[in-house]
Amino acid sequence: MSALDVDGMGARRALAGIADDLSDGDDLVVAHARAVWSCLVEPGDRIAGALIAALGPVRALEVAVASRGSGDEAARAGVELAELAKARERWHPRGGDAPERLATARRAGARIVTPEDHAWPRRLDDLGPFAPVCLWVLGDTAPLGSADPAVALVGARASSAYGNFVAEDLAAGAAAAGIAVVSGAAYGIDGAAHGGALAAGGVTIALLAGGVERPYPAGHRDLLERIAARGVVAAEVPCGASPTKWRFLARNRLIAAMTDATVVVEAAWRSGALNTAHHAAALGRPLGAVPGAVTSATSAGCHRLLREAQAECITGIADMCELLGLGAGLELDGSTGADGAVGEGGGNVVGGVARRGADDRTRLLDALSERSARTTLDIARRAGLGPDDVAILLGLLELDGVAERRSGGWVRTKPPKTAPLW
Amino acid sequence: MSALDVDGMGARRALAGIADDLSDGDDLVVAHARAVWSCLVEPGDRIAGALIAALGPVRALEVAVASRGSGDEAARAGVELAELAKARERWHPRGGDAPERLATARRAGARIVTPEDHAWPRRLDDLGPFAPVCLWVLGDTAPLGSADPAVALVGARASSAYGNFVAEDLAAGAAAAGIAVVSGAAYGIDGAAHGGALAAGGVTIALLAGGVERPYPAGHRDLLERIAARGVVAAEVPCGASPTKWRFLARNRLIAAMTDATVVVEAAWRSGALNTAHHAAALGRPLGAVPGAVTSATSAGCHRLLREAQAECITGIADMCELLGLGAGLELDGSTGADGAVGEGGGNVVGGVARRGADDRTRLLDALSERSARTTLDIARRAGLGPDDVAILLGLLELDGVAERRSGGWVRTKPPKTAPLW
Repeated sequence: MSALDVDGMGARRALAGIADDLSDGDDLVVAHARAVWSCLVEPGDRIAGALIAALGPVRALEVAVASRGSGDEAARAGVELAELAKARERWHPRGGDAPERLATARRAGARIVTPEDHAWPRRLDDLGPFAPVCLWVLGDTAPLGSADPAVALVGARASSAYGNFVAEDLAAGAAAAGIAVVSGAAYGIDGAAHGGALAAGGVTIALLAGGVERPYPAGHRDLLERIAARGVVAAEVPCGASPTKWRFLARNRLIAAMTDATVVVEAAWRSGALNTAHHAAALGRPLGAVPGAVTSATSAGCHRLLREAQAECITGIADMCELLGLGAGLELDGSTGADGAVGEGGGNVVGGVARRGADDRTRLLDALSERSARTTLDIARRAGLGPDDVAILLGLLELDGVAERRSGGWVRTKPPKTAPLW
Repeated sequence: MSALDVDGMGARRALAGIADDLSDGDDLVVAHARAVWSCLVEPGDRIAGALIAALGPVRALEVAVASRGSGDEAARAGVELAELAKARERWHPRGGDAPERLATARRAGARIVTPEDHAWPRRLDDLGPFAPVCLWVLGDTAPLGSADPAVALVGARASSAYGNFVAEDLAAGAAAAGIAVVSGAAYGIDGAAHGGALAAGGVTIALLAGGVERPYPAGHRDLLERIAARGVVAAEVPCGASPTKWRFLARNRLIAAMTDATVVVEAAWRSGALNTAHHAAALGRPLGAVPGAVTSATSAGCHRLLREAQAECITGIADMCELLGLGAGLELDGSTGADGAVGEGGGNVVGGVARRGADDRTRLLDALSERSARTTLDIARRAGLGPDDVAILLGLLELDGVAERRSGGWVRTKPPKTAPLW
């Protein structure tokens, strides 16, 4: 396979302009081997992942391009010889494409980032043998390797105005809180999420299913250029690769794996966003879903996640921060406020003892009139409380300024402070 | 206390037209004692509940109306003498009202239902000493005691058109499935729930905070008349009692206790409906909440229940039936259909082995063109699969009618059957 020059100078030539900050010869050879690997495999190739993990990318590639043998090394990787033979059958026909793919990357200004780089997103390591062999990147590579929090905001292409608004709002909130927004650059929710993050001056990362040099979808060419200029556009497939359905599904695992949590903003009953959600759950990453009207088909998938996948209900940026484990110190709006207790505004008759004082107060206020003065006895009868208790409680209400002595008894001076019941 | 005639003839006179199907003298005396009790206490009076449970309503009432003593009997009820003395202070001033309240019930055509009746809703027994001493009823008493499933549909007074629609829809679905709809007759969600049940010819029960002879709210006079004519209007307070704030809160526990599950359709961040939800949770009854737009203030309380009270997300009648434990055989719409698996439409790369076949098929379909015929080798290279596997898979796709042999290779005959990705 001509694409593999396993020496420093050959690798330097092949990677010129792609990995030009690699000064060390070994680094160059490793990066070059990974670049070639990305040309040979489809995403998530378990045999390739196992060989690379066991033998390193360079030796693994030498085993891959050999036409036979290497049984001992395959065994070390836990790969059976029959599996290796089958894998070679699918890898070899692609070997000849590698030089052209690297030339395309060079022309497009794409850079390679590998697990050996500081800029490698360490969260991807959780994918084990299904991790990408490298990433191809347009834009600044530094945000990829950042340990700052990151959230996946994904959802329907055919989104509603409501969904777009919520996606933009969550993305802007994330940007304000220093959280990177990761999505797939699709029409609808993905685009709104990227756009919201950009508009708020935040970091956003677009993961593509095809080569990074192909704007996909075409209508998002401008958006992708803005993301590349101020964030990151990345893909595991090499330049020149087309975005196939399989690669969309594989790309979804990267969106889930590269983030601390996934939030589905809008999704139909069957939606690709559910595939991303599934990957997040499989990786043990927190999963959130934004509710919507039950009459809206574009929220049916979100409600399904709430019901069937125990997704957290996300109503705003505060809920999203809580999902990311950033609850404390990041209460950005009132949606999850100080008083979390359900029904605290109302008396609890079932277990009434604890709230006796508040309940008696309610009953006493009920028994007072704003217009006509009532005697203590009359108030006691109306409230169903003993006259002695009423005398004491009226004094307390007077101190609170809600009851007042008049000739002939007591009146309520203003309506009760608590909100009216429904 | 003149209202208590503890003999058959006195009770018969007092209850004429109120409990006239009670033929037995003892029954009459018991029902009369409970009728008087309902005039003495506010809802959820624990001391009254304990005395009645220990001594029976008649003897308990004799203890209550005595001015002192009865220490032994109080002790049997677990009531301290000081508590009893205090309770007498609040009960005695109301004794004189009882005859007028019973006369009002008679004029209004209200009937009394007691725990001794077949028509007593047995679910209320879960309230223990906080259970009502009796119910005052307009309409047919039989549905109260029915063992058929019942659901509480409650929510905001200031509901949206969306909330009203969903409440009507759920109520109509409940009616069609033989589920009684219980609510509080308030404006907004409550009214929509009752109306939806009536329109669908179902059973509906309105629980009021004041006397059943007072239409409350006044604007629901017609609705309450229709409910009384074809369902049940009930209250634990006697006729003539006004609907105070305390009584609304107490009434909410009855709505929760009389049903198998409570569903909050729409509720603001602080809403009386959350109080009903709290009672349902405290009683261990299933709790559901209908989601809505996160931008809608009238859904904020529902989302709070989903987040903080682990309420089930209810998107339609099928979800509601599942909440009631009626899932099997009651799949009335498609919202919880046959295929519950999340993300099943997409390949799972993280744990990809199980779905290998479906994944390979996707990759092969990706590699076929509808326009130009491609060779097996070309298809294998594009799909990243071995040529032998491709040859076999192409045969299978041909059998499925999605691929076709042409001169020069293979074409895709129609788009893939699965839905497009987002």
